[in-house]
Amino acid sequence: MNKADNKPRRIEPRTLKGFRDFLPEGMIPRERMIDTVRGVYRSFGFSPIDTPALEYLDILTGKGSEETDRQIYRFQDHGGRDVGLRFDLTIPLARFAAQHIHALGTPFKRYHIATVWRGENTQRGRFREFMQCDFDTIGSLSVASDIETGLVIHEMLMALGFDDFTIRLNNRQLLNGLLDKLNLADKSTAILRSLDKLAKIGADKVAEEMIASAGTSNEQAAQVLQLAHLAGSNDELLRAVAPLVAGSEVGEAGVERLARILAGLRAAGVPEERVKLDVSIARGLDYYTGAIYETFLDALPGIGSVCSGGRYDNLAELYSTQSLPGIGASLGLDRLLAAMQELDMIETVRTPADLLITCFDLDQLDRYLQIATLLRAAGVGVELYPDSKKLGQQLKYADKRGYQLVIIAGPDELAKNECQVKEMSSGESSYLSLDQDGQHLIDHVRSLLNQ
Amino acid sequence: MNKADNKPRRIEPRTLKGFRDFLPEGMIPRERMIDTVRGVYRSFGFSPIDTPALEYLDILTGKGSEETDRQIYRFQDHGGRDVGLRFDLTIPLARFAAQHIHALGTPFKRYHIATVWRGENTQRGRFREFMQCDFDTIGSLSVASDIETGLVIHEMLMALGFDDFTIRLNNRQLLNGLLDKLNLADKSTAILRSLDKLAKIGADKVAEEMIASAGTSNEQAAQVLQLAHLAGSNDELLRAVAPLVAGSEVGEAGVERLARILAGLRAAGVPEERVKLDVSIARGLDYYTGAIYETFLDALPGIGSVCSGGRYDNLAELYSTQSLPGIGASLGLDRLLAAMQELDMIETVRTPADLLITCFDLDQLDRYLQIATLLRAAGVGVELYPDSKKLGQQLKYADKRGYQLVIIAGPDELAKNECQVKEMSSGESSYLSLDQDGQHLIDHVRSLLNQ
Repeated sequence: MNKADNKPRRIEPRTLKGFRDFLPEGMIPRERMIDTVRGVYRSFGFSPIDTPALEYLDILTGKGSEETDRQIYRFQDHGGRDVGLRFDLTIPLARFAAQHIHALGTPFKRYHIATVWRGENTQRGRFREFMQCDFDTIGSLSVASDIETGLVIHEMLMALGFDDFTIRLNNRQLLNGLLDKLNLADKSTAILRSLDKLAKIGADKVAEEMIASAGTSNEQAAQVLQLAHLAGSNDELLRAVAPLVAGSEVGEAGVERLARILAGLRAAGVPEERVKLDVSIARGLDYYTGAIYETFLDALPGIGSVCSGGRYDNLAELYSTQSLPGIGASLGLDRLLAAMQELDMIETVRTPADLLITCFDLDQLDRYLQIATLLRAAGVGVELYPDSKKLGQQLKYADKRGYQLVIIAGPDELAKNECQVKEMSSGESSYLSLDQDGQHLIDHVRSLLNQ
Repeated sequence: MNKADNKPRRIEPRTLKGFRDFLPEGMIPRERMIDTVRGVYRSFGFSPIDTPALEYLDILTGKGSEETDRQIYRFQDHGGRDVGLRFDLTIPLARFAAQHIHALGTPFKRYHIATVWRGENTQRGRFREFMQCDFDTIGSLSVASDIETGLVIHEMLMALGFDDFTIRLNNRQLLNGLLDKLNLADKSTAILRSLDKLAKIGADKVAEEMIASAGTSNEQAAQVLQLAHLAGSNDELLRAVAPLVAGSEVGEAGVERLARILAGLRAAGVPEERVKLDVSIARGLDYYTGAIYETFLDALPGIGSVCSGGRYDNLAELYSTQSLPGIGASLGLDRLLAAMQELDMIETVRTPADLLITCFDLDQLDRYLQIATLLRAAGVGVELYPDSKKLGQQLKYADKRGYQLVIIAGPDELAKNECQVKEMSSGESSYLSLDQDGQHLIDHVRSLLNQ
């Protein structure tokens, strides 16, 4: 307040760059998607957890990645502590697991759907605030968890209404096995860094880089690239990989593991065409040590993977001496919503209720309230227009909000203890008795709503 | 990483004071409560929205309350902008409405369930990060919205399982009417500030303060206190208030409005004993201008109001020249959860799934996966234990997680194409055939789960 003239100064209403308001038409599908995803997680026994948005800065920067460190929103709090906003849900999970795993016991299966913040360059079309949907199984090395991770991805996409998608599967053990054989195990970080550029710069440049930065021989670089270039059906690939890693314990175990994952997914009912072995996917650098998943929509391959993850050897090594292996994946909520929009899979809805009761006359308000109560008790969502504006104006409002059904109860109808149910698309009206606790009305409305 | 020895340095896993981790047993009831509350909001046609956690600092400090300003987590972002974390959902709603109301149209009914942050003194048992659940109807002055606000509060508490609670209702117009009559309208802020201390310091001290700080006469102070002290049934109160405000337009309108709100709540089925007029509730200072609601649990009056709100004249005056009157309320999620815990209304659950399939032998994994798939397709949530540990260990895990049902399928059972369903509480087991897509198993499990 500007105390001088006792009038408020006007502040320009605006949001920060990279941050978004969600209006109902954006928020309703978002809530629906989260509900669906949560339902799938829960059906596999994953439990929800939550952690603070703000953490001690040393917790967040412990991983020491220059890029994420730079992007952390950081400051000193009121007590002079160095704090930061979480930039992912993995670091908080690691910290959480280190702190609570004794109370929780293993296997510990959690999901976490929450907001994260990154001070990223928005020019790349990235947001600085977005939601992550992660699920992880901690404390088991079993192939059962590897299989289940793929299964959850599959069920999630099915539940969201997708039919045509491909889950790409790899196992980091294959490359590790090959590097073992080539005596390059200690160079794996540099080699992965080069391999990651394969799609971008091509095989020749990758080979050059491996030779220059990892000190491989020509022959070694060629063998690594041979692995990355393998293609074919899942069976063909497994057969082609086997000789490349034969003799390496980890490599052979990797081939066997992939075969078991494929068999498990098949046993659980995942159609074969939806799972594709792909030895070229690496997903970043050192973190993953076993199975790796990526998921692509067949109609929109260009948007990249919509659900990715993999197995890691030790989640919480920064915070605990206890070794906590696990596997998990993260659903790209924003990316998937954008895809569903583009594929016209989302009906625009601007209200979560089923119908609007118009307000003819505020003196009849108690009657409208009674009708609304009857319908709500029957499971019908009802908005009551609060003002006795012109009917045309109220119908315009109903249209704008996307209501399919409108109840009109003027003095004539109410005198006969009935009301009019108008279908907005056709303009057709029916007159329904309000006798017998409105059972006729309820039945009519529910049948129009296909309830 | 400490590059010198290539071993990670250990960081103590810990959370900031006033911030909380939510483990599954805390998070599952929290999610359930949010789902319930959201369901009620939606059934009245309130739509979800979301706004950024971070706002320009001048948006947040615009209101100029010293206390909230001091509590804001504030800092400079990567672009040197002064930003802050939202400390409530009202300021963001005001900013949001100013920015989007032309696109949204009125009446605009929104709910917003989101986290807010306040650098408060935690010694008072307050958290620095907590969730708010707000709902508001913007752009209507109608008594219908006043009634609906009370109705939503009532339905929400009922849906959460409460029977014994009291919704306290007041109308700021009563006091304003009296002050009008006493020619004290311009002193209302000072008078409210004194009145707010009534319960704490008593009537004599309040009178002294009103005389000293607002410059009222003895007689004026006595009349204000007379209003605040009125008690009795709702009808008695309305009758007693009427003469005190008679002659003031706003005061008379206030009495009539209260009568209509009471009638509307009754018409919509709210039992009379759950709504109590209380002319002493004021809810803070200048903000509210009409109906005011507070809600108390009869069993735990000491915890204060669990759902409060009221009518305001102009939501967005700081950000817009458009006048946006409205009414809304906020559910105290944490307070209510604590109350439900204290009243033993929350069953401790550590898993969202219905049963655990034990893992006898990983070679039979495909069979377990098939059983899990059958049950999930029938709507049963299934966790599959991923490791072939000793059965006793797996049953201990089931017990710890709170599973009531466990499926055991050893080689003998699987050879006969059946499995064992064990009820954890009684230890009883049944053997169910897996023929016919496991229909016997599904029926048995669903009947044990009362599905």
